[in-house]
Amino acid sequence: MAKVNGLVKADLNDIFSMEMIRSLFRGVGQVMFQNNGITGLLFLVGIFWGSYTSHTGYVAWGAVLGVVVSTIVGFLLGLPKSHGTQGLWGFNGVLVGCAFPTFMGNTLWMWIALVLCAAMTTWVRVALNNVMKPWKVNSFTFPFVLCTWVFLLAAHVMGAIPPTHMDTPAFPTEMSAHVDGSLWSVVKYWLRGISQVFLIDSWVTGLLFVLGLLVSNRWAALWAIVGSAVALGVALIYRAPGVDVAAGLYGFSPVLTGIALGATFYHVNIRSALWALLGVIATVFFQAAVDVLLTPLGIAALTSPFCIVTWLFLLPLFKFNATKEEDEDHSMWQELNRRRAKEIAPVLQTPAAPTPKSSVTTSSDTIKKS
Amino acid sequence: MAKVNGLVKADLNDIFSMEMIRSLFRGVGQVMFQNNGITGLLFLVGIFWGSYTSHTGYVAWGAVLGVVVSTIVGFLLGLPKSHGTQGLWGFNGVLVGCAFPTFMGNTLWMWIALVLCAAMTTWVRVALNNVMKPWKVNSFTFPFVLCTWVFLLAAHVMGAIPPTHMDTPAFPTEMSAHVDGSLWSVVKYWLRGISQVFLIDSWVTGLLFVLGLLVSNRWAALWAIVGSAVALGVALIYRAPGVDVAAGLYGFSPVLTGIALGATFYHVNIRSALWALLGVIATVFFQAAVDVLLTPLGIAALTSPFCIVTWLFLLPLFKFNATKEEDEDHSMWQELNRRRAKEIAPVLQTPAAPTPKSSVTTSSDTIKKS
Amino acid sequence: MAKVNGLVKADLNDIFSMEMIRSLFRGVGQVMFQNNGITGLLFLVGIFWGSYTSHTGYVAWGAVLGVVVSTIVGFLLGLPKSHGTQGLWGFNGVLVGCAFPTFMGNTLWMWIALVLCAAMTTWVRVALNNVMKPWKVNSFTFPFVLCTWVFLLAAHVMGAIPPTHMDTPAFPTEMSAHVDGSLWSVVKYWLRGISQVFLIDSWVTGLLFVLGLLVSNRWAALWAIVGSAVALGVALIYRAPGVDVAAGLYGFSPVLTGIALGATFYHVNIRSALWALLGVIATVFFQAAVDVLLTPLGIAALTSPFCIVTWLFLLPLFKFNATKEEDEDHSMWQELNRRRAKEIAPVLQTPAAPTPKSSVTTSSDTIKKS
Repeated sequence: MAKVNGLVKADLNDIFSMEMIRSLFRGVGQVMFQNNGITGLLFLVGIFWGSYTSHTGYVAWGAVLGVVVSTIVGFLLGLPKSHGTQGLWGFNGVLVGCAFPTFMGNTLWMWIALVLCAAMTTWVRVALNNVMKPWKVNSFTFPFVLCTWVFLLAAHVMGAIPPTHMDTPAFPTEMSAHVDGSLWSVVKYWLRGISQVFLIDSWVTGLLFVLGLLVSNRWAALWAIVGSAVALGVALIYRAPGVDVAAGLYGFSPVLTGIALGATFYHVNIRSALWALLGVIATVFFQAAVDVLLTPLGIAALTSPFCIVTWLFLLPLFKFNATKEEDEDHSMWQELNRRRAKEIAPVLQTPAAPTPKSSVTTSSDTIKKS
Repeated sequence: MAKVNGLVKADLNDIFSMEMIRSLFRGVGQVMFQNNGITGLLFLVGIFWGSYTSHTGYVAWGAVLGVVVSTIVGFLLGLPKSHGTQGLWGFNGVLVGCAFPTFMGNTLWMWIALVLCAAMTTWVRVALNNVMKPWKVNSFTFPFVLCTWVFLLAAHVMGAIPPTHMDTPAFPTEMSAHVDGSLWSVVKYWLRGISQVFLIDSWVTGLLFVLGLLVSNRWAALWAIVGSAVALGVALIYRAPGVDVAAGLYGFSPVLTGIALGATFYHVNIRSALWALLGVIATVFFQAAVDVLLTPLGIAALTSPFCIVTWLFLLPLFKFNATKEEDEDHSMWQELNRRRAKEIAPVLQTPAAPTPKSSVTTSSDTIKKS
Repeated sequence: MAKVNGLVKADLNDIFSMEMIRSLFRGVGQVMFQNNGITGLLFLVGIFWGSYTSHTGYVAWGAVLGVVVSTIVGFLLGLPKSHGTQGLWGFNGVLVGCAFPTFMGNTLWMWIALVLCAAMTTWVRVALNNVMKPWKVNSFTFPFVLCTWVFLLAAHVMGAIPPTHMDTPAFPTEMSAHVDGSLWSVVKYWLRGISQVFLIDSWVTGLLFVLGLLVSNRWAALWAIVGSAVALGVALIYRAPGVDVAAGLYGFSPVLTGIALGATFYHVNIRSALWALLGVIATVFFQAAVDVLLTPLGIAALTSPFCIVTWLFLLPLFKFNATKEEDEDHSMWQELNRRRAKEIAPVLQTPAAPTPKSSVTTSSDTIKKS
């Protein structure tokens, strides 16, 4: 990799290529740690279903724009291509694309801000991964969280990006924990906990997301289901605000924590499962805490509870496997997932280009001098 | 240390042992950096006195539960035993145990949350110590602060852990600086500044804490006394809120800063004493600042002002001793204290098991591969 | 550098010397990354003009006191002298000196707090630079931001340092974006964007600051002008609060970002110019975001938007130059600036003492053991 890094260095052939199409779908899949284009496709179907059925179809187009912009920026910046083909440039951008039209008015300047924010996540990810590299953890979706928070905060005072579905800043107060407890209602809360990973409030979308995970990694699908169920239980027991629980807002971060700890960064075994379960439970309290913390600012927690808890559970560098196989380095998940995906779903897997040793993904996206 | 780290790996004989009892008392003592069981015992006596005389005896039992849970979790996680016998697993947990019943309602689910939170501090400490290791500082009581903040914030919206003695979220406003200035009142404020280290509002408890420190390290006792007095003076001069000053809430963090900088991390001399004095004064302003910062959230500063100031004063890695003896590495305090304790109070000191070289405490709690 | 570091170790001859005078002026110049005494002198003239014409002349004297105190503390702590002569101890202190009398009442205890705070920035800078060293970035003016925030927060509850020109804590709400759009008004907003770097609201001062930059580095002057103009445009387009835009409060952080990215840390070329432009635009949104974030606390953003954006744009360690000349290490800017200054303005430049190799500034201010 002797090439000097920089702006506007990309080969246009790279941008208009089949590889690019794959990168985009994988980018959607990587929101839940899946380097799998079919998974990404099913996630996108879920996003379109959820947004069109709630008459906010532009949210789905925001998602498309977000993943396209952030992925192209990765090419323009000359970042390591192997990251792009694994969808690592796009997963923050697709979330930015879901969040902007969800929370802010459908104005021209909002869409321009969306492009800027989605683009920024690509290099903020490089920045944060560089910061976290010494501790062997990854920035996850925090570049999305950080950059989106900036624009959501700004929306309160900038007339051109008016807040629409954001809460009015207020003091935190206790809210009714009442929810409709019928079985069918509870099932819907449970599946919405999965759909809210992409800020979609739809149980059908939740099912589509589980299907998308199944295609790539059955343990990830299991942890999405278990994570949302356990989180729902804890939220009900501790009487979290009923409106939020019913909308699945207490489920999406635990789902991600469960997939990360239970099916991505550790070998699947009883110890790592216990650890992931603890993480899922802790995430519920972090969700409540971040919600309260942000109430006076009137912005959403996004996936920050997942990021914080998963960092706190990975940073001790515990090992739950007696063999030396298990890598302490939690900053890479792609290799591990690819291997599993091959074992589990060889038919559905998009054939991966042979990866030369030197381009193996590392936690640092920085190009070293040759 | 060839053993692989993990969940539920402890020998039950370790948990039901005399060594365990010692670990628990030392855990209480380590809140003020003292690796001394007698100190911990006297601290506990102070906690029981203070909580029973104010008709909140369950706070003392919370403290006991907190130190027991967090210490057992250290065993269960298979962390280095030498840390446990020095009380390093328990000092965050005991503070969690004091804080939960102080701020939240005495419900079953509060006690379960207390257990979860106290347990979590043990591995969050490993996580934060790993993060801070490159800069040669320790996480101090920040695992307690971070984890407790999460539950206190959550308490505002979770009906099962109702806030009881927490402030209502509000905007910060100037408050009356009036205090009763009679000598006896001022002496009580001064001693309460020491008792509030464990969230206890009692001058008798303050005296018992000083006695506990004297048993282990006379310089620590001196800095507790000086730290609280200087902080009281600065708070009165700058007209901090009178109610808080009278309750000792402007004293406990400076007390810890004074012990840390003046009697723990540097050799005792005139230069380090000046440095500690500056730290104590700075902590008063950080206390006011964190109080204001948290007013809209209605949660307490806990020991965060101490942690932040002590980090800022240790991070420059200044040396105040001409000899090469002084270690730049501020992440270990146990060895230094043990040596001093032997010199000062050989009679009272619980005989320490001979420590093999290889088990010397380091800032990182991670078990290395053999 | 065999000398042990410590308190009160300075030679008094160092403090009362011509070198000291130069250090002070350069300290003022370093607020905008200029190691140039004439620049600092012109900045000071601008500060005096701006503060006396608005009948708050004591602000200018605060600036003088701040730079003197923080620079002397550098000597007293025995920090590397080459840093002092380059003005690196004073640039945070001068900003503290501008901020304290601007926001707090003109009381004796405010001035004492100013001295404490200005002094603290000198070692907090060492602390933060140590923290950031692994990522090759510098703490910039963040020691000023952090320490000043502490006292501004404290001012809300400490009667002896009453808030005077601070906002009352409130919830963020949309504000009128109306500004007088006449050409002369817009020019004044533009120049105030530059003067607000030192918290001065005066277009004349803005001109004097540009002149000061021209003396040292024409590219820095250009980026001050461009940064403030672009920021003004973005703020107007996105309809930021009109009162703030007119006062130049949306300009000063982008000005610093522009100088940092466009004329300090990268070689000047079209790619780095594009990068700096992106940084300037991003800073406008970060300014709005931090303003909203701090509204419930009633304190000012200070230069934090600049610090955060510049970190995020430097941390990816991108290189915009094909030659190997460009240093990846963004923590040093003095050497680069000195070279440029020599090329550009040899006549005006204060002759620099010949710098021996061993005293080259590094990102870490810590004295190593010899």
